[in-house]
Amino acid sequence: MPAISHKAKAMPASPIRKLMPFAEAAKKRGTKIYHLNIGQPDIETPETFLNAVKNWDVKVIEYSPSAGNESYRKKLCGYYKEYDINLEASDIIITCGGSEAISIAMMTCFNPGDEIIIPEPFYANYNGFSCAANVVIKPIISTIDTGFALPPIEEFEKVITPKTKGIMICNPGNPTGYLYTKSELEALKILVKKYDLFLLSDEVYREFCYDGKEYVSVMQLEGIEDNVILLDSISKRYSACGARIGAMISKNKEIMKSALKFAQARLSPPSYAQVGAEAALDTPKSYFKNVKTEYIARRDYVIEALNKIPGVYCPKPSGAFYCIAKLPIDDSDKFCQWLLEEFSYNTQTVMLAPATGFYSTPGAGKNEVRIAYVLKIEDLKSAMTCLEEALKQYSLKASN
Amino acid sequence: MPAISHKAKAMPASPIRKLMPFAEAAKKRGTKIYHLNIGQPDIETPETFLNAVKNWDVKVIEYSPSAGNESYRKKLCGYYKEYDINLEASDIIITCGGSEAISIAMMTCFNPGDEIIIPEPFYANYNGFSCAANVVIKPIISTIDTGFALPPIEEFEKVITPKTKGIMICNPGNPTGYLYTKSELEALKILVKKYDLFLLSDEVYREFCYDGKEYVSVMQLEGIEDNVILLDSISKRYSACGARIGAMISKNKEIMKSALKFAQARLSPPSYAQVGAEAALDTPKSYFKNVKTEYIARRDYVIEALNKIPGVYCPKPSGAFYCIAKLPIDDSDKFCQWLLEEFSYNTQTVMLAPATGFYSTPGAGKNEVRIAYVLKIEDLKSAMTCLEEALKQYSLKASN
Repeated sequence: MPAISHKAKAMPASPIRKLMPFAEAAKKRGTKIYHLNIGQPDIETPETFLNAVKNWDVKVIEYSPSAGNESYRKKLCGYYKEYDINLEASDIIITCGGSEAISIAMMTCFNPGDEIIIPEPFYANYNGFSCAANVVIKPIISTIDTGFALPPIEEFEKVITPKTKGIMICNPGNPTGYLYTKSELEALKILVKKYDLFLLSDEVYREFCYDGKEYVSVMQLEGIEDNVILLDSISKRYSACGARIGAMISKNKEIMKSALKFAQARLSPPSYAQVGAEAALDTPKSYFKNVKTEYIARRDYVIEALNKIPGVYCPKPSGAFYCIAKLPIDDSDKFCQWLLEEFSYNTQTVMLAPATGFYSTPGAGKNEVRIAYVLKIEDLKSAMTCLEEALKQYSLKASN
Repeated sequence: MPAISHKAKAMPASPIRKLMPFAEAAKKRGTKIYHLNIGQPDIETPETFLNAVKNWDVKVIEYSPSAGNESYRKKLCGYYKEYDINLEASDIIITCGGSEAISIAMMTCFNPGDEIIIPEPFYANYNGFSCAANVVIKPIISTIDTGFALPPIEEFEKVITPKTKGIMICNPGNPTGYLYTKSELEALKILVKKYDLFLLSDEVYREFCYDGKEYVSVMQLEGIEDNVILLDSISKRYSACGARIGAMISKNKEIMKSALKFAQARLSPPSYAQVGAEAALDTPKSYFKNVKTEYIARRDYVIEALNKIPGVYCPKPSGAFYCIAKLPIDDSDKFCQWLLEEFSYNTQTVMLAPATGFYSTPGAGKNEVRIAYVLKIEDLKSAMTCLEEALKQYSLKASN
């Protein structure tokens, strides 16, 4: 049998999905699981989206243009305009989810062996895309004590080498929920200009910014237009994760021309979801207002509940729908597996994502978990009760 | 401005899409274009597919499993069974079109610099996927004189080096329409076994085999189960090119386990299209019978019409809906561009794909074009009249 590739061997397994078999087994035993482990919201997809697909009068599901339907891309410019991001349709390539936007951007910008700096903890699948593109991630740690603020610029400069070709951020952040300030982004801009780096920014949670704090996009940073690539997705915006519509966006014509060649090789993004996503641009503002109100209530509840549990600390995030909590545990992978394998309280348990999967520095995140507050408050209450009880039992177990 | 990657520079532009601007300009001048350049059938998508999507009662478009919905994969086993391909659901990963199946298979099997042998002419986007995966294609020529039969096994052996890691075929063939015989595939099997190579086979046109000739899948070749990967797509089967549903299939557990890691990184295949594709498995046989009858009539008409034009030769294909024709021209790229830029007959013209894009040997295919017989016979008639007239004018132009 021929050997599989080195890349296939090195490819990391999804840290969120690797607990799935334990969850399946727990379900089979009749245990109810509160899923706080994955960013799959329970929020309904807007009717604008669902109805457009239902009513699409199509006889032949044809290829769409490789860059995506022009009508959709044109209308998207209006959406971005509301966020002070000025685009033309040609600055946008519609992709199969934000995932494909990341893949194409990495292949367009980076050579095998090139290094990109990413503040950690970061979205775990960046590891997979980097592995696929043979790009080396150089992590710099942002800490729970600062609420996962941007690490000082000196920390970036410390790891810059002749191979450094880019910086990648997620804003608002998954898994931290941190929203970068304008001055943090301006500092990054100076760095990007100084070393002539690409700046890739994953901003798929822009609809989820709280407490009146300002969302600043890398697309608004003046003077580095040719360095900046925006990575986007409608998955969270419209609670349409399975639709698989994202976008790769840049004002840099050479980048977009090259990226289009990758897009052409795979022919086109999904047709049905494009139709839904285009129609969803007319979703009434009230939809987002309600969603935001709901997430704020969930966040406020979860953060307060977590910080009341002895030994637990969780900073209050200003965006997205995740938080990273420090728990009184020694090994978050073991703890999260134990929650599914051994623990239950009133035949219920909670599934969390071990934070280790969001760090690439070995050993980091061992006493942290990511919590996605994507369930109704009532369920979050039961989940927090489970967690509190679990931590009690786990510490007793450890001291025995 | 930072430089784009070497890969982005080397990435080939789609040979089929590079004539698009000339087609756009011709349309603006009011010229009607018969599109024989792209495999976008005019056949209607089955109602089973369309209705299932319309009637999908969904409130939240959630991520599907990374390997695709289990119900779909289980039901697909029944579909393959009818072609004497015995699968379990775990042998199948649902992908975003056949394109993603090719990408994931290449990344799973091949290291940068590894060589794969592909009989040419071959589907042009194999170049793009190989470039993205840093894989080197070693072409061996199949000729129009044999109707593009599999080149002799000696030709494969001539290009085998220590870096050779796989063979890739398309059966029935795009762009040739050639259907490999059982003995050709048995010969490949011996070769694959002798050198322990991966055998990747793109069999997306299996519904389109004509004249009672037998379709043999690589999945039926006994003794090389661990070497074989089937690349599939529903795009042509259900005339649902824009839906973006394909599959990567193998009995090799290690390959599937590794491929799943790539699939997990990109989260999931498109939800809507999976629902349609699953329902489409119940499409009545009469649908395929009618489609096949239509394609046979189109093929028979086109092949006869082509061979009647002075200086034109086109072998009769037994599968898919393409043929490669030899024309009395010196440069198919120039000719195809001229058809759009300068020629018209009764304000009509025809768009063809220069065959050069399907060869990777420089200079090959210069007097050949690929014709996709995907239009109604009435339109094919007008298209063939245009082509005949165009060849007359082109030869006059050349002799002036």
